[in-house]
Amino acid sequence: MTPEACGAEDFLASAMVPGSPLTPDASAFLEERHRSATYEVERVPLAALPQWRLGERLGHVSGRFFGVEGLSVRTDFGPVPQWCQPIIVQPEIGILGILAKRFDGVLHFLMQAKMEPGNSAFVQYAATVQATPSNYQRVHGGRSTPYLDYFMEGTRRRVLFDQLLSEHASWYLFKRNRNMIVEVREDEEVPVEEDFAWLTLGQLRDQLGLGNRVNMNARTVLSGISYGVPGSGRPSPESLSGGFRSAVLESHRTPGPAADLSGVSTWLIDQKARFSLDARRIGLREMDGWICDDDSIRHRDGRHFEIIGVSVRATSREVGAWWQPMLEPCAGNVVALICQRRAGVLRFLAQAMVQPGLTDRLELGPSIQFVPGAYRGPQDHPLLTEYLEAPESWIRLRTVQSEDGGRFSRADTLHVVIQLPEDHEIEVPGNYRWMTLGLLNRMNRLGYHLNVEVRSLAACLL
Amino acid sequence: MTPEACGAEDFLASAMVPGSPLTPDASAFLEERHRSATYEVERVPLAALPQWRLGERLGHVSGRFFGVEGLSVRTDFGPVPQWCQPIIVQPEIGILGILAKRFDGVLHFLMQAKMEPGNSAFVQYAATVQATPSNYQRVHGGRSTPYLDYFMEGTRRRVLFDQLLSEHASWYLFKRNRNMIVEVREDEEVPVEEDFAWLTLGQLRDQLGLGNRVNMNARTVLSGISYGVPGSGRPSPESLSGGFRSAVLESHRTPGPAADLSGVSTWLIDQKARFSLDARRIGLREMDGWICDDDSIRHRDGRHFEIIGVSVRATSREVGAWWQPMLEPCAGNVVALICQRRAGVLRFLAQAMVQPGLTDRLELGPSIQFVPGAYRGPQDHPLLTEYLEAPESWIRLRTVQSEDGGRFSRADTLHVVIQLPEDHEIEVPGNYRWMTLGLLNRMNRLGYHLNVEVRSLAACLL
Repeated sequence: MTPEACGAEDFLASAMVPGSPLTPDASAFLEERHRSATYEVERVPLAALPQWRLGERLGHVSGRFFGVEGLSVRTDFGPVPQWCQPIIVQPEIGILGILAKRFDGVLHFLMQAKMEPGNSAFVQYAATVQATPSNYQRVHGGRSTPYLDYFMEGTRRRVLFDQLLSEHASWYLFKRNRNMIVEVREDEEVPVEEDFAWLTLGQLRDQLGLGNRVNMNARTVLSGISYGVPGSGRPSPESLSGGFRSAVLESHRTPGPAADLSGVSTWLIDQKARFSLDARRIGLREMDGWICDDDSIRHRDGRHFEIIGVSVRATSREVGAWWQPMLEPCAGNVVALICQRRAGVLRFLAQAMVQPGLTDRLELGPSIQFVPGAYRGPQDHPLLTEYLEAPESWIRLRTVQSEDGGRFSRADTLHVVIQLPEDHEIEVPGNYRWMTLGLLNRMNRLGYHLNVEVRSLAACLL
Repeated sequence: MTPEACGAEDFLASAMVPGSPLTPDASAFLEERHRSATYEVERVPLAALPQWRLGERLGHVSGRFFGVEGLSVRTDFGPVPQWCQPIIVQPEIGILGILAKRFDGVLHFLMQAKMEPGNSAFVQYAATVQATPSNYQRVHGGRSTPYLDYFMEGTRRRVLFDQLLSEHASWYLFKRNRNMIVEVREDEEVPVEEDFAWLTLGQLRDQLGLGNRVNMNARTVLSGISYGVPGSGRPSPESLSGGFRSAVLESHRTPGPAADLSGVSTWLIDQKARFSLDARRIGLREMDGWICDDDSIRHRDGRHFEIIGVSVRATSREVGAWWQPMLEPCAGNVVALICQRRAGVLRFLAQAMVQPGLTDRLELGPSIQFVPGAYRGPQDHPLLTEYLEAPESWIRLRTVQSEDGGRFSRADTLHVVIQLPEDHEIEVPGNYRWMTLGLLNRMNRLGYHLNVEVRSLAACLL
């Protein structure tokens, strides 16, 4: 995928359409799908998970799906120089794909109402396809994955976005998925299965604003959408004169010249060279500070997160009933972007962050990534957390969004966007940088440059 | 770094200048520097290396520099599904930087005549700066690194190229260096130290053609040079009508539209998704098939490579005398690019290859990467090796180039470029693809897309 964007004008037009005759009530559709299926999720001891074995690592007897191992980390980034932690290892590359098609000239996106066992709100809008090779090669003997063919080699139509992007690098080791948006021609018939609905970006934006309605996998794909092309200037639609949303769109449509992208790239390499990271896979029993027994894998002080077992019964997933381990974080995660009008355009404060599971050590994250379970005490809290107490008039977005409900249990993250007044002065260290949304998007399109937390926030800024 | 190239016209102009009054005889300069210094390299047992410890890993007592560990590999790429091997672990990001400056309007490059203990030809042209953090923070108490400031944050001038690029992924785990070309203004005085000389790209090309004159680190930086910008069309200088070099330049200047880059990127992700790789760090004593004793670490059948100790005495390096482990490969490595005029332009056959030490599993390599020590027998030889026996009239380049002489001992790799007649038909599997040099260069500028072997070949195609 190149930093040049595909279909920016069409994406923008779709974002301006708040409703569609194809799915007149996007909230009602989700509620109806929720009522039509039954789910039961129950916590069970790890040792009681059929076909999973807990030894030096926790893994499935088939060797497929994913495993949990220990990780020993040393770094000079942040206040804690070394620690051990469990980490999910899943080397497969899954596909997160959204199918797009024009109806009456307006781009719609085929979203799946999907139940995931870890989500607090069970049924959410997911990508059209969300499948690991284990899924689509049907290792567990389930149903075939609908619409998968649209995303496979040889049968694809017009690729609007296609990039490998990282996922939660504090919980996953080197995990990345393939994020795709593929457009089919307007005259091509696409059958709509029961759990699926065509939505405009305007409708998706409303669902994102409500919180816990658009799942993590859909949000990361949506973060690949570009509304601006280099050299397109900054014309905002006439319908948006003034206000935060207008400023957001202007920021999307100000990617800056190629020199800006070079400058950011060089700065990001500077940060990679500046910080060290040594992460080494170890046995689960070798982890200092962690308890690993038949029930769960947990920190001795109850901090960070816990690896638990769950049993799931559902009618709307590939397999009706199954067991699996999940990662359940301590409650209270917050991610926040601070923005401010600077040099005439709204710019967002990105932070270059080292995380142990990243493919290349460091990516751009949000201004604040606050993980209560990660600290020994307030002395370790990350920079800028005081802005989470900003006056209400500075808050532009505050919604709860879920993390991947297929791996993480009750992992709800508060998403906050804070706009500083133009005359507010703020000092940040060299690993922070102000960027337009257009520039962030161009970085994202290069792959492995934006972490999933900042992508999730950016997706809410349609 | 963006795929948009900086200074393509200036690079091309420099490549057309075969001589320079600043360094009238580039070969003589190298010979003179060779005579002015003395070197003595002697093999010693690993156990005799002062300050190195051989246990479950081989490492320096300071914890710096690099280490050698075991790696257990499983993959479905290639004929061997699993193996163990030693691998060099060096997580630091070094700087490989070439300083550029115009003299009488022509870009010159400040090259260092550098001795490296592993090279068969001791003194070669190296980048202006070739330094790991261990070097430039002077862990071993040596001299400061000249010209380093030109490449550091805050004191840089015009950055023409800046990208993290992978290195030998069969010998190094996740190794990458920062490849930089930085231009200083024509009116800025740059003192020239004893071992340094300003050369044009034309002069460097001649040295590359002679073989074993331009070291690996310089070649990888030179591979970042672009001669074509998107949309520039294909005007070749008038002085080059017809012939292989003219076709090479035309290929450099045909990057293809943005859609080509998207298409290659999507195809490359397809290959990443298609092949699996699981590489796990293990202890040196856990490696099946390898002997690890006081003398060396070697394969029981004498295949692949050997980790040996060397003692070095030199007058022209940061430290006058030192000891270190080195990797000595079996002799006979060959890398080759097959090219053919297709659809009017010379295109090169790149191969998407899984290698265990790559940061993200798979990168583009040459058409043929033949490593004699890697095979159980001819049944394992890679595809297309029969083209190494092509008629002499098809051979466009055949030179021996050295690998990094700071880590590898007597690692000489034969570089071959073979041009197939237009009517010659060749069938290749889906993980091979024909690309212009311009398109390969654009991929290279995105980072982690071209392995060091194909970059080294591309650098010879100035």
